[in-house]
Amino acid sequence: MTSPLRATLDFLLHDWLQAGSLTARERFSDHSRETFDAVLDTCERIAREQYAPFNRTVDMQEPRFDGDKVILPQCTHDARLAYAHSGMLAAAQDYEMGGMQLPYVVESAANAFFGVASIGIGANLLTTGNAILAHGTAVQQQVFAANEFNGRWTGTMCLSEPQAGSSLSDIATRAVPDGAGFEADPLGPRYRLTGHKMWISGGDHELAENIVHLVLAKIPGPDGRLVPGVKGISLFICPKHLVDEGGRLTGEHNDIALAGLNHKLGWCGTVNTLLNFGEGRYPVRGDAGAIGYLVGQPGEGLRCMFHMMNEARIAIGMAATMLGLAGYYASLDYARTRLQGRPVGAGGKEAAQPPVPLIEHADIKRMLLAQKSYCEGALALNLYCARLVDEARTGGAQAAADARLLLEVLTPIAKSWPSENCLEANSLAIQIHGGYGYTRDFPVEQYWRDNRLNMIHEGTHGIQAQDLLGRKVVMQEGAGLRLLGRTVGQTIQRAQDSGHAELAAWADALAQALQQLQAATQATWATGDAQQALANAVPYLQAFGHVVLAWKWLDVACAVRRADAMLSGAANRGRTRAAAYFYHYELPRIGPWLAVVARRDMTCADTPPEAF
Amino acid sequence: MTSPLRATLDFLLHDWLQAGSLTARERFSDHSRETFDAVLDTCERIAREQYAPFNRTVDMQEPRFDGDKVILPQCTHDARLAYAHSGMLAAAQDYEMGGMQLPYVVESAANAFFGVASIGIGANLLTTGNAILAHGTAVQQQVFAANEFNGRWTGTMCLSEPQAGSSLSDIATRAVPDGAGFEADPLGPRYRLTGHKMWISGGDHELAENIVHLVLAKIPGPDGRLVPGVKGISLFICPKHLVDEGGRLTGEHNDIALAGLNHKLGWCGTVNTLLNFGEGRYPVRGDAGAIGYLVGQPGEGLRCMFHMMNEARIAIGMAATMLGLAGYYASLDYARTRLQGRPVGAGGKEAAQPPVPLIEHADIKRMLLAQKSYCEGALALNLYCARLVDEARTGGAQAAADARLLLEVLTPIAKSWPSENCLEANSLAIQIHGGYGYTRDFPVEQYWRDNRLNMIHEGTHGIQAQDLLGRKVVMQEGAGLRLLGRTVGQTIQRAQDSGHAELAAWADALAQALQQLQAATQATWATGDAQQALANAVPYLQAFGHVVLAWKWLDVACAVRRADAMLSGAANRGRTRAAAYFYHYELPRIGPWLAVVARRDMTCADTPPEAF
Repeated sequence: MTSPLRATLDFLLHDWLQAGSLTARERFSDHSRETFDAVLDTCERIAREQYAPFNRTVDMQEPRFDGDKVILPQCTHDARLAYAHSGMLAAAQDYEMGGMQLPYVVESAANAFFGVASIGIGANLLTTGNAILAHGTAVQQQVFAANEFNGRWTGTMCLSEPQAGSSLSDIATRAVPDGAGFEADPLGPRYRLTGHKMWISGGDHELAENIVHLVLAKIPGPDGRLVPGVKGISLFICPKHLVDEGGRLTGEHNDIALAGLNHKLGWCGTVNTLLNFGEGRYPVRGDAGAIGYLVGQPGEGLRCMFHMMNEARIAIGMAATMLGLAGYYASLDYARTRLQGRPVGAGGKEAAQPPVPLIEHADIKRMLLAQKSYCEGALALNLYCARLVDEARTGGAQAAADARLLLEVLTPIAKSWPSENCLEANSLAIQIHGGYGYTRDFPVEQYWRDNRLNMIHEGTHGIQAQDLLGRKVVMQEGAGLRLLGRTVGQTIQRAQDSGHAELAAWADALAQALQQLQAATQATWATGDAQQALANAVPYLQAFGHVVLAWKWLDVACAVRRADAMLSGAANRGRTRAAAYFYHYELPRIGPWLAVVARRDMTCADTPPEAF
Repeated sequence: MTSPLRATLDFLLHDWLQAGSLTARERFSDHSRETFDAVLDTCERIAREQYAPFNRTVDMQEPRFDGDKVILPQCTHDARLAYAHSGMLAAAQDYEMGGMQLPYVVESAANAFFGVASIGIGANLLTTGNAILAHGTAVQQQVFAANEFNGRWTGTMCLSEPQAGSSLSDIATRAVPDGAGFEADPLGPRYRLTGHKMWISGGDHELAENIVHLVLAKIPGPDGRLVPGVKGISLFICPKHLVDEGGRLTGEHNDIALAGLNHKLGWCGTVNTLLNFGEGRYPVRGDAGAIGYLVGQPGEGLRCMFHMMNEARIAIGMAATMLGLAGYYASLDYARTRLQGRPVGAGGKEAAQPPVPLIEHADIKRMLLAQKSYCEGALALNLYCARLVDEARTGGAQAAADARLLLEVLTPIAKSWPSENCLEANSLAIQIHGGYGYTRDFPVEQYWRDNRLNMIHEGTHGIQAQDLLGRKVVMQEGAGLRLLGRTVGQTIQRAQDSGHAELAAWADALAQALQQLQAATQATWATGDAQQALANAVPYLQAFGHVVLAWKWLDVACAVRRADAMLSGAANRGRTRAAAYFYHYELPRIGPWLAVVARRDMTCADTPPEAF
């Protein structure tokens, strides 16, 4: 039997996003609906067998340091191996890189199964090969990227430091040339790094033979001082174990030491570390200092890293979404089977009747429909963004440029909206379980804990909001926002042309919401004063996200209508009801959010610190 | 130096609620501002010394069962003893009961310190003496209530069963007369109980000599069958260890056995249990069956228990509030000391400047002000409700009747609103901490986990909503809602008469909101069909709560204006800013909530189970 997640993915991929049409493109010409299905089948099976049964295990058996090694449960080793063997680490890569040239949208859909099964195990799948491919030399690509894609090694991103989380301009890790001839190393210009890196996921473990750290650091100027701001930041490859240009381990441990494990509220299946670079714990060739190979040009580090930060942000949105869906499925199952109480009839309750399944109660249905509209909506948005990535890579010139611009505007939403709303979905999943949901005998409390991270890592909510309102909607004189408006307008037009009264009513509501959003954008920037404009960036982000989600739901509802003849009535009715929920209960929430934005409300910003 | 919490309590108790005026009443005539202050001083000290340092300890050292006893950390024993010695267990009781005849509002304020310091330890303070005082015989009062108030014994409430959580009409615990002469027992009519009780806080431990369980059970009819519905429910006292009429332990263990501990997401400092009554594990006088003494009349059990459920619900609201405040204080402290980034100036950021404390950033201020408005507002509401309890007990006839009616309407809000919004406050406290907030090195993640329980226990959010919209606002032809309207109207009038433009503007907004609320109440009941009327009971509860909180903030803001000359400028400015936040950012949220209520939106209720 098709699982509910698979049915939803199939619908979104094929009935909605027409993923099959990608096979007409040269890059994907070996593919077909059958190969796409086979990838999804494989991933669903591995996730079911190797991930889902161990999600609580990795929550209970936190990573620990035995003084020498970081110990993870055996199931994490097994799961990663199964994933690596599937070839999914390189799914979207070129054949020459050992990849299968899968569209990114299909890769994303296939990875969804791991997110639902166990986000903690699943996050051990991340590689950093893409940034190396984009900015590294041929040797760096062959040595470091290829060995991540084939599963031999794993990767990390080392950005934050204990004193510099959101504020990367304040990083203090230094990189100095490693002696004479440092520029001639075949692996790239060789530096010695010293500094502390915080919040490094996968920073130390024994899951693979080596760990490829991508590290942001500053090269001091001639006066020995670090350049303030982000312009002084460069990017380095620091392997845990040093390797030669053939990718063989040299037997030398790089001067990178585990300084501590972070003990987290959730997401315990993924080890998170504080790393000390270059403190002399593991001297290399007699000297302290971690060996690092420059990637790209000096001073271009943040740009190079952000190449993969954008994909990482979409991946976080996807993780939040899958945790949300996991809670939805769990609470739906519970609501169908748990007997409790009697529904309110027209005249009240009848105590003499037997109790009914929870799902018969109106408020339980409300909490289920809210979850469905949040999580399936977020899934639609994330798959749409993944489809834009494919368009940016393989579409015609104009289509590719448009896709890139839309992605700029949508990435903060794809990251932040599921992080906030699918977390709320998890809370509703607990609520449906009542007291049982508050115990560790059911999975929903873990989903809620795990999901709380997503509003924090890879750029907090506040950072996403500043990115959206401070950069993305104003860049190129607002070209991104205008393009989004036109694209949303196409959906509105389609819905209005459908002749379907409900779709047309939603289209009107969306058109009005879009206008409100555009007006608020203009109003908040009316004085040109960034302090005023950005004072309510987070409410703006929340409203923007709700408009985008309303758009996705209208688009999905149009696809439901097109596909109606072919699909099961109940699943399509559910999609339409989730869209209705979003238009009736959620979209109107933008009013209060945009009101403070539009009038540049300074209530918060003007409150002096001593008044708190 | 006065702690921020103490300053807030002093302001609310004295400048706002005029608690001192209660000393003019006979019952409180021995009291004065000095005795009130002394109680607060004592509680603040005990909480600081015996509770706060151990809040993480009780989170890490969960209660465990060693096969014989339930083991709690030593700090829990010490803390309870210090609390019992303070006399606070009987603070509001008559002198004859060993009490100090303290106003309930002062008792509530004093207990706030324990909630902020450690909710998990603090919840071991609950007694059930009040229900026994209200409905028990003189002997039951002297034996059971008095020994709870003096700290010798502890109490529990045993309502839920594994198959009956929210739906108490389905409880299956049976109580049958304990042989001939069962009615002649000096401790009350003696029954034998059999059944399972779930979610029993404090259900087993070694904190005290005995545990007094108050148990809901059904007495079978002559045909041996249980009466369906809540009408068949009676209330029993089941002590863990049997006692004689002098309160001396007889040495007999009652037939009550620990069936298991619940392993919870949070609130780990309070043991929570599944208890088996009468399964024969501890036969009494040769027979299976737990001995229980009837309290009040047969069939009146739920009414008797609800006497204390209402106070328990206000206590839950207070617990949620104090967890919220604990997070607020922690994140405020962090925001004042942690340096990160630069605020956006009119023209953007200046990277060459040194980093500033987090509290300089507009979005951090927004998250602090939101917390302050949620938590201090919730504290005001809860203290106001406590003041109503005093009025109901000691006011003149009309004032007491009004207070009782207002309490009926406000209790679901006092319980539910802090549970939802102070939980959100805790999430904001995590967010301010960034990644650090997600680790167990900081206290905020624990507050968030602990607080998640409050929307569930003592009646879920959904149950509170049905109580409010299904009973409280329609009882006595809507007299409660009308009384609330008049009372809110007095505040509105006062604000309009103040001549202060900001207060007058908020008064107008509140008047409009109140009207919207009343209109929605009428509209949802317009067809008289309970199924339609209650379909959106939770959005109604949310909107109702926001209107009530806006009222409290306006009332507090009026008091700030009155007290302004006497109080520190910064603290009062903070209160006014929190009120402004509530009016600008929160009150407008009622629009979308009430819209679905008013149009009796059936999107959720009409979605068939198979569509999910």
